[in-house]
Amino acid sequence: MSSLIPSGLRTPATLVLADRMESNLAAMAAFADEIGVDLRPHAKTHKCREIARRQIALGAVGLSVATLGEAEMLIGSAEIDDFFIAYPFWAESDSIARLQDLAGHAKISVGLDSAEAAGRLAELSGRIAAVIEVDCGLGRSGVAPTNAVAVAQAADRAGLDVAGVFTFPGQSYSPGGAASAARNEASALMAAAELLGEAGFQNQVRSGGSTPSARAVRRGELTELRPGVYVFNDAQQVELGTVPMDEVALIVVGTVVSRPAPGRIVLDAGAKVLGPDRPAWASGHGRLAEFPGARITGLWEHHTVVQIEEPGPRLGEQVAIVPNHVCTAVNLVPTLTVVDKGRVVDEWQVVARAANR
Amino acid sequence: MSSLIPSGLRTPATLVLADRMESNLAAMAAFADEIGVDLRPHAKTHKCREIARRQIALGAVGLSVATLGEAEMLIGSAEIDDFFIAYPFWAESDSIARLQDLAGHAKISVGLDSAEAAGRLAELSGRIAAVIEVDCGLGRSGVAPTNAVAVAQAADRAGLDVAGVFTFPGQSYSPGGAASAARNEASALMAAAELLGEAGFQNQVRSGGSTPSARAVRRGELTELRPGVYVFNDAQQVELGTVPMDEVALIVVGTVVSRPAPGRIVLDAGAKVLGPDRPAWASGHGRLAEFPGARITGLWEHHTVVQIEEPGPRLGEQVAIVPNHVCTAVNLVPTLTVVDKGRVVDEWQVVARAANR
Repeated sequence: MSSLIPSGLRTPATLVLADRMESNLAAMAAFADEIGVDLRPHAKTHKCREIARRQIALGAVGLSVATLGEAEMLIGSAEIDDFFIAYPFWAESDSIARLQDLAGHAKISVGLDSAEAAGRLAELSGRIAAVIEVDCGLGRSGVAPTNAVAVAQAADRAGLDVAGVFTFPGQSYSPGGAASAARNEASALMAAAELLGEAGFQNQVRSGGSTPSARAVRRGELTELRPGVYVFNDAQQVELGTVPMDEVALIVVGTVVSRPAPGRIVLDAGAKVLGPDRPAWASGHGRLAEFPGARITGLWEHHTVVQIEEPGPRLGEQVAIVPNHVCTAVNLVPTLTVVDKGRVVDEWQVVARAANR
Repeated sequence: MSSLIPSGLRTPATLVLADRMESNLAAMAAFADEIGVDLRPHAKTHKCREIARRQIALGAVGLSVATLGEAEMLIGSAEIDDFFIAYPFWAESDSIARLQDLAGHAKISVGLDSAEAAGRLAELSGRIAAVIEVDCGLGRSGVAPTNAVAVAQAADRAGLDVAGVFTFPGQSYSPGGAASAARNEASALMAAAELLGEAGFQNQVRSGGSTPSARAVRRGELTELRPGVYVFNDAQQVELGTVPMDEVALIVVGTVVSRPAPGRIVLDAGAKVLGPDRPAWASGHGRLAEFPGARITGLWEHHTVVQIEEPGPRLGEQVAIVPNHVCTAVNLVPTLTVVDKGRVVDEWQVVARAANR
């Protein structure tokens, strides 16, 4: 029997393990403090007001979000008064009015990686800040550090407050990649900030961070960290070596609905609740929290197929599954069931679920 | 400029191309008719009442669903009166009451692959039918054809009407795999049905089907087909060779928000709207409908990174993305925007979204 799963659950169920979450939040806050950086957690992972408030209470300077919609859904609390849209923001028909509205309630910064994108925000002159995105080697969005000044100048011409530079060291998502990702991140941010300083932009934020690379950041390199996943962790983090399994604070409970062959069980929690993420280096489509030797060898929309040493869980037994990527798993459910000391204590709305615009 | 995208859309947006959908629905209905099988489309793909009704109007004998919840959400129409829960059904605390309620409004069949699962349905004696799941080589759920009789006898003892056998030839999801998957499917179903006949179970349904393998099914092998994806198709189907790109009836519209390097564009539609599915054999994380040479080389929650020949779409331009797996993409949005002759004509609720229980 599982020690993580309260009795009486209907599966699939997505559970937050409250004590582990609290410990994850506190540990990252302490680490940021220890190396002297501001913590601005990425709220795309949890999308919940309750967790956002807790992050702020533990000292976060504000939140990172991916979209305007995420900020709009999370702002429903006076305690959250500082949002950074950490994305190459491109203003659409409704964006100016929405940003204006947000800026009436909170400090708003947006990411920019082109002069064109900066120019589209000129109507917001004096009301929002711009943070220039640089690429530290991931090859996603962001300009080369040497081109950050040109974007900053465009933002300045549009009347935006140029607040600094940011990057995402996503190359940390490969086995053994965390330390070098943190070095790439630091180099790109420091180079870009220095060039901005020479061009007259002072007191520049250097914002970086991903959960795998966060602990490899050294004092003085960054001024701000934006990890997201750390609140819950997931099978990717376990397999990357970022955390041990007992620091995973979100599980999906599935029931064994079929035992078609010895050593193979089928759970009623599939890709529509775990998320289909499966990097090439992962051992499978997630992990079982309490069966370290088991491997999730197959994943369909409503079937998780597990190879497991016998005797494994029986037909009808409930099993704790750890999704590969917790950010996509949270986005698949309307609420998270909060468990403390083996009992269900709350139900949190995933208020920013599917807030993709 | 795209010929598929109506003007004035806010991105990301998930669109149904109504004329293509209608043609896909009609073509599969005609094919089923041509080979003399009943069509029971899998509604997990679309999760919409409007489409379910259209499938029934075009001659489908009923719907396949994956969960009780999907049936409950789709039954809100007198025209849909026959559901098959095509899953190894395992009755939980609330299942008997829910099945009883459904059975008051529609003919209900459930999949079974163990005597234990059958025994849990004895309270529904005389009210629902059982269809025995056999494995045709996928290695997911289902018993070997030689073990189907034992499960059928358990269902019979529980008082259920044994209606036949079903399988899912998911090995069709590999390049060149469709024809042999259809042969595996036919062999398993015919072998199991013959054994059931010898054991006294007459008039057995032989239910199979997946979108890639459907067209390889021959007259006389099956009595029922359960394809799901065919209503929309997706990048997987295009890359498997099931359909050409112009038979894809669902697109996700993204805006070019960044052009960080020549030949690379970033779209504001990521894994949280496309779905993260990416089989090893796929060329990338989806395709662009109108740029056949482009490849989606990177996918994050809100970034789709495309390698594309210059001149590609400009900053701010909207682009039609074809998700790899349309079933998970539909499940990510509350509504689908319906487009006909280049104009938005309707908005359909994804009523069975996240109905995972």
